Amino acid sequence: MGEPFSTDIQVRFRDIDSMNHVNNAVYVSYLEQARSEFFREVLDERLDRVDTVIARQDVEYRHPIDLGEAVRVDLEVTRLGDSSLTMRYEVYAGDDLAATAESVQVAYDREAGRSKPLPDAWRERIENR
Amino acid sequence: MGEPFSTDIQVRFRDIDSMNHVNNAVYVSYLEQARSEFFREVLDERLDRVDTVIARQDVEYRHPIDLGEAVRVDLEVTRLGDSSLTMRYEVYAGDDLAATAESVQVAYDREAGRSKPLPDAWRERIENR
Amino acid sequence: MGEPFSTDIQVRFRDIDSMNHVNNAVYVSYLEQARSEFFREVLDERLDRVDTVIARQDVEYRHPIDLGEAVRVDLEVTRLGDSSLTMRYEVYAGDDLAATAESVQVAYDREAGRSKPLPDAWRERIENR
Amino acid sequence: MGEPFSTDIQVRFRDIDSMNHVNNAVYVSYLEQARSEFFREVLDERLDRVDTVIARQDVEYRHPIDLGEAVRVDLEVTRLGDSSLTMRYEVYAGDDLAATAESVQVAYDREAGRSKPLPDAWRERIENR
Repeated sequence: MGEPFSTDIQVRFRDIDSMNHVNNAVYVSYLEQARSEFFREVLDERLDRVDTVIARQDVEYRHPIDLGEAVRVDLEVTRLGDSSLTMRYEVYAGDDLAATAESVQVAYDREAGRSKPLPDAWRERIENR
Repeated sequence: MGEPFSTDIQVRFRDIDSMNHVNNAVYVSYLEQARSEFFREVLDERLDRVDTVIARQDVEYRHPIDLGEAVRVDLEVTRLGDSSLTMRYEVYAGDDLAATAESVQVAYDREAGRSKPLPDAWRERIENR
Repeated sequence: MGEPFSTDIQVRFRDIDSMNHVNNAVYVSYLEQARSEFFREVLDERLDRVDTVIARQDVEYRHPIDLGEAVRVDLEVTRLGDSSLTMRYEVYAGDDLAATAESVQVAYDREAGRSKPLPDAWRERIENR
Repeated sequence: MGEPFSTDIQVRFRDIDSMNHVNNAVYVSYLEQARSEFFREVLDERLDRVDTVIARQDVEYRHPIDLGEAVRVDLEVTRLGDSSLTMRYEVYAGDDLAATAESVQVAYDREAGRSKPLPDAWRERIENR
């Protein structure tokens, strides 16, 4: 829905593992960073204060990422369910597509212990980007 | 193939994020830790010295993990391809199934820039566990 | 005060950096893990729920740590001030002293924005270990 | 020696711990990131390919860092020994001095298992900045 939302990522020395590339778990932190920026800029929310959980996350690794590369995550909301938000990600290292990924995030009522509807405000902001 | 291979994981204070649960990217490090132990004990190899790459990884999050919980990862090789190794994981926090996951790992010839056959020795050790 | 408090640390694949040793920042997470266990076992407190901040932390690195090594952190409270707690750490990798460290932790009143006295209960438990 | 060398740091969601501030160990990764940039830009070296070890590192924490803050590390070489390089750091979060730190890094001959002289090229580049 709308144009992809882009987040530049600063690759850190600490992201590199003993194979001399960005560690596979760190890609997941890059996705989270993009999601965090999306929540802040598009939804005017802090990701650490909203009642959501990640239900599923898939990553396809296509190209290693090295220290010093310019990394960008493009994020798109591909589905707005009753209580779930599906996002699709493309991670670029320079011009190379380094990974594609998908996450399903669910609005969650912690006290009741079950999912709850997505806020209407989010729906509007996402649909009207 | 064979019994699941179990790895106990020590949850660290640093694994917890601002939602007070183990961060979603850290689960991926738990899977890697299990994989690393499997390579060491079953294949007699160091994961940082073998020529493989992770091609795909999927995680389903079912239950949050708290600091102080006893975490265990059960790993099973579910498919041995020509050049790929598919593993299935169950992450337990106490008696709760906290996550299920799958990874596809590919033997890779870095110089040629393409996949290569899995070593026969791995195949034998995995089939005869 | 009292015997050192020992915490075993599980070295993770993710702790290793591109120099093939445990990254220098990760030692600081090992210290925190030891502190977290000390708070739980000796003070019956959760480190993430107490009102303290780390004011200072020094690490001397003496020996690299490799994947697969048995790591143990020995922690000793070396000074109990009015509002501060000084801890001394020895990090062992097998029989090698891999690092020594010191931390100063201060009881902190976040609303008032200043330090506050250490709880008497902590003082008693630490002095009577 | 010379002007401080500045590195902007992107604070990540993953940097925040359960106290809702940047975790104390992550500051050490920020220092390392600054050091890595300094090596690249001033010494034309990759920090992961030079033969050095961190011998000592001290951090004074003065102010918590929150998600969304603009963080900058100012790094200055304060001493050039025969085989050691002492750096002083100031970590800013916006206009607040969030931490000061010092590291001692030693040129190290891994085969001989002892320190070795700093390369002359480094000395010249640092003195002539």
